[in-house]
Amino acid sequence: MNIQKSSADLYAAYKETTQKAADLNNASAVLGWDQEVYMPAKGFEVRGRQLATLASLAHEMLTSEAYGNQLQELAGRGDLADDEKRNVELSLEDYNKNKKLSAAFVEAITQQTSASYNAWIQSRKENKFSIYAPELDKMIQLKKQQASMYGYESNPYDALLDEYEKGASVALLDSVFGDVKQQLPVLLDKIKTAQQVNDSFFLRNYPKQAQWDFSMDVLRAMGYDFEAGRQDMSEHPFTTSFAPTDVRVTTRVDENNYSSLLWSSIHEGGHALYEQGLPIEQYGLPLGAAASLGIHESQSRLWENNVGRGKQFWHHFYPNLQQYFPQQLNDVSIEAFYKGMNKVEPSLIRTEADEVTYHFHVMIRYEIEKGLMNGDLFTEDLPEAWNGLYNKYLCVSAQDDKTGVLQDVHWAHGSFGYFPTYSLGSFYAAQFYQQAAKEMPTLTDDIANGTLLGLREWLRGKVHQYGRRYTSEELCKQITGMGLDFKVFMQYAHEKYAGIYGF
Amino acid sequence: MNIQKSSADLYAAYKETTQKAADLNNASAVLGWDQEVYMPAKGFEVRGRQLATLASLAHEMLTSEAYGNQLQELAGRGDLADDEKRNVELSLEDYNKNKKLSAAFVEAITQQTSASYNAWIQSRKENKFSIYAPELDKMIQLKKQQASMYGYESNPYDALLDEYEKGASVALLDSVFGDVKQQLPVLLDKIKTAQQVNDSFFLRNYPKQAQWDFSMDVLRAMGYDFEAGRQDMSEHPFTTSFAPTDVRVTTRVDENNYSSLLWSSIHEGGHALYEQGLPIEQYGLPLGAAASLGIHESQSRLWENNVGRGKQFWHHFYPNLQQYFPQQLNDVSIEAFYKGMNKVEPSLIRTEADEVTYHFHVMIRYEIEKGLMNGDLFTEDLPEAWNGLYNKYLCVSAQDDKTGVLQDVHWAHGSFGYFPTYSLGSFYAAQFYQQAAKEMPTLTDDIANGTLLGLREWLRGKVHQYGRRYTSEELCKQITGMGLDFKVFMQYAHEKYAGIYGF
Repeated sequence: MNIQKSSADLYAAYKETTQKAADLNNASAVLGWDQEVYMPAKGFEVRGRQLATLASLAHEMLTSEAYGNQLQELAGRGDLADDEKRNVELSLEDYNKNKKLSAAFVEAITQQTSASYNAWIQSRKENKFSIYAPELDKMIQLKKQQASMYGYESNPYDALLDEYEKGASVALLDSVFGDVKQQLPVLLDKIKTAQQVNDSFFLRNYPKQAQWDFSMDVLRAMGYDFEAGRQDMSEHPFTTSFAPTDVRVTTRVDENNYSSLLWSSIHEGGHALYEQGLPIEQYGLPLGAAASLGIHESQSRLWENNVGRGKQFWHHFYPNLQQYFPQQLNDVSIEAFYKGMNKVEPSLIRTEADEVTYHFHVMIRYEIEKGLMNGDLFTEDLPEAWNGLYNKYLCVSAQDDKTGVLQDVHWAHGSFGYFPTYSLGSFYAAQFYQQAAKEMPTLTDDIANGTLLGLREWLRGKVHQYGRRYTSEELCKQITGMGLDFKVFMQYAHEKYAGIYGF
Repeated sequence: MNIQKSSADLYAAYKETTQKAADLNNASAVLGWDQEVYMPAKGFEVRGRQLATLASLAHEMLTSEAYGNQLQELAGRGDLADDEKRNVELSLEDYNKNKKLSAAFVEAITQQTSASYNAWIQSRKENKFSIYAPELDKMIQLKKQQASMYGYESNPYDALLDEYEKGASVALLDSVFGDVKQQLPVLLDKIKTAQQVNDSFFLRNYPKQAQWDFSMDVLRAMGYDFEAGRQDMSEHPFTTSFAPTDVRVTTRVDENNYSSLLWSSIHEGGHALYEQGLPIEQYGLPLGAAASLGIHESQSRLWENNVGRGKQFWHHFYPNLQQYFPQQLNDVSIEAFYKGMNKVEPSLIRTEADEVTYHFHVMIRYEIEKGLMNGDLFTEDLPEAWNGLYNKYLCVSAQDDKTGVLQDVHWAHGSFGYFPTYSLGSFYAAQFYQQAAKEMPTLTDDIANGTLLGLREWLRGKVHQYGRRYTSEELCKQITGMGLDFKVFMQYAHEKYAGIYGF
């Protein structure tokens, strides 16, 4: 006797498994947060095995035959609610993708991640790419293998891009970075030949506690909910979420360089608002997760750059900041402060780059990754290729590997295809912000008054509440009426820097 | 074809499952620690489901038929190493015990814990036992049911005691508390009729940071490894372990009552030294876990009372403490400080009780639990029974339920059989400390010089390194040549308080 389960029962069973796997992954996130923020040194080794156990159990749940059958069965049911249907579609997509990787492959790449990461650490200590190269090369071979396991139409790199940004492809990125390559150097040249701005006041001594307190003020003003989150210190700032009701940010303080803490807090705050704005009733399900890395980055960069490096924002906050740092800032006018924080200058380190040169850093990594995956470039060529591209696009040369090819951890983690989402985030942010200003005529006035909640609500309504319902492109079209369009960013940047550099 | 697996392979498989379950339980401990120490308020609900998922997965692993068969098979193998054999024996014991509870029962008691706990919170708010009574009664019925599921020889309460202190029984405790009841009141009477000591200087204002700093000094001196642990603040002090390489303590600060922080830090430090001293190579296995709650408590109380409330300890530390609090303590001699910290006074609240009256508090709970489990006492009788016993043993009467029967959370959690381990811990501590002094003739001099590492090493060698290899009684016999013996505590207490109160 074969009794057919009701769709409601089937969906409940699917939901239970999916949410249990999310519980495991969120528990991992708590352990990961603790590891970066509070864990004592000797805890490292055992923490590693605890994280591995949680990850493998979650993976088992989400790749079991039973789970796959459930999803197949549900996908054929016509009587699911809209949200349910979309969750099932997305989970089935994830399942099919997960199933393409064998358990042995997942194990191999996990082990290689650890080996590559250790080699990366070691090579940075000794400032020698050659120590990293063999382990990085093994990772690259595994990623090529992964691309062919996933399958692709025209380009192996497409298969990897898809993991971070569904729908992104070499075709799309070649077109976007083609525009970048053509238009951004023109702007950069104008800036270079203009009167330079002064940002030396950032290097005065800014006491830690006051930096911290002001960052807390700004997070509060952004509408970051401290009853559903907290800020801590860590070596590298990050945002992590255990549920929309518990989303945490971290920051770091350099007492002799104020330019780092503040915008990193706003940046992470932007990520955190997205996570806090995801629908709690979809906890653990696709509709309860962020759309993509690019969209995530659009939220952090919109707050960091479009808002936090904007004139209006400081109209309200600069007097407040001056109260925290009367000695350090009494001879710095708001105009000088605004210009200083937006100084554009080609440099070697991506994470310290300004809004304009940043995209050259990303493009360089994109071109290298594409070359590696398509077989046009090999591991041993990396330092030379790296330096060649930096010379070509930014006219700077790394003095050593540490400030060159060894600066990012991403490849050690196997994250090929991740970098482009940083630029996509900025470009989407420009489009979203432009749209927000269109729809909210008082936006700039509100920001100038320190009233940021309207923008947060707009982003909730337009982006956060949908989770993974739409791809980045669909979401962008739905919000702005068109897909990704570099010219909006270009226009924003041109206008902003023309004002600052006077051209 | 039935190929027999080698014992090495079988043991490896057993070890893997057991350690994976430990990974889950330790991950739960991290989540629990975070919940008490750093979690924002709104995180509570989802954290609850995450903890439930981790617990149920660990439970599934450790109660699966396959795991049971593995253990049975291993138990029959003659070619295991000593440690391996003992791990298998203990895991099989745990397995058989776990299997006696049905999944439905485990679920029911988990839910009742939450219901009872909420009712307890509510009843404390309104200071009314009647709010708590119905939910507590349900818990009591479940615990009776649990006792009969476990099975027992003469007394249902025995089955519950065994969970916290293997081998403990009503027979043993009736005998111990029989001695307590007979001998301790004699001491208490002598103290009551002597000249009372003054401890009012504890109620001066002691700034938070200095309290914290001194507690860190003391933890360091005890040999608590801060590279394998950390101290944080929480509402109720506790110790938690994620592995011997990551064992954390918490404390709390009351600026207007210095008597709380310091000894709670030493107490938790004692627990933490035990956990840090467990053998890391037995991670997740029975030989890597503490022997029992009574032995755990022996470690915390030995450090808190035998060391931390002793004269020698302050010979070294009091000048140091006076430097932290020059104004607060400049008119308090070391003698007065020593007497003040050891003031004996019958009171209503267990957690604030001194070393002498503490055991009356425990005995009262023991008698009540025994009565409830054996059907001699009923939930609705609790307030009356409670007050009757407090009057009888300590000549004090609670003015309300909050300072009476509602003061402890244990019963809400279903922890019947837990309280007696507090007294057992003190009694074992007296025996261990006496033995340590015998074996280390310089012990008191060392302590007077602030040299505490010798004692830590002695405890590592005698207690910590063995994990669960021996029961409490076996361990006590092995260390001291005899089992639990209240007269050692009695002798210690008589000598100490005769000195303080001059009789």
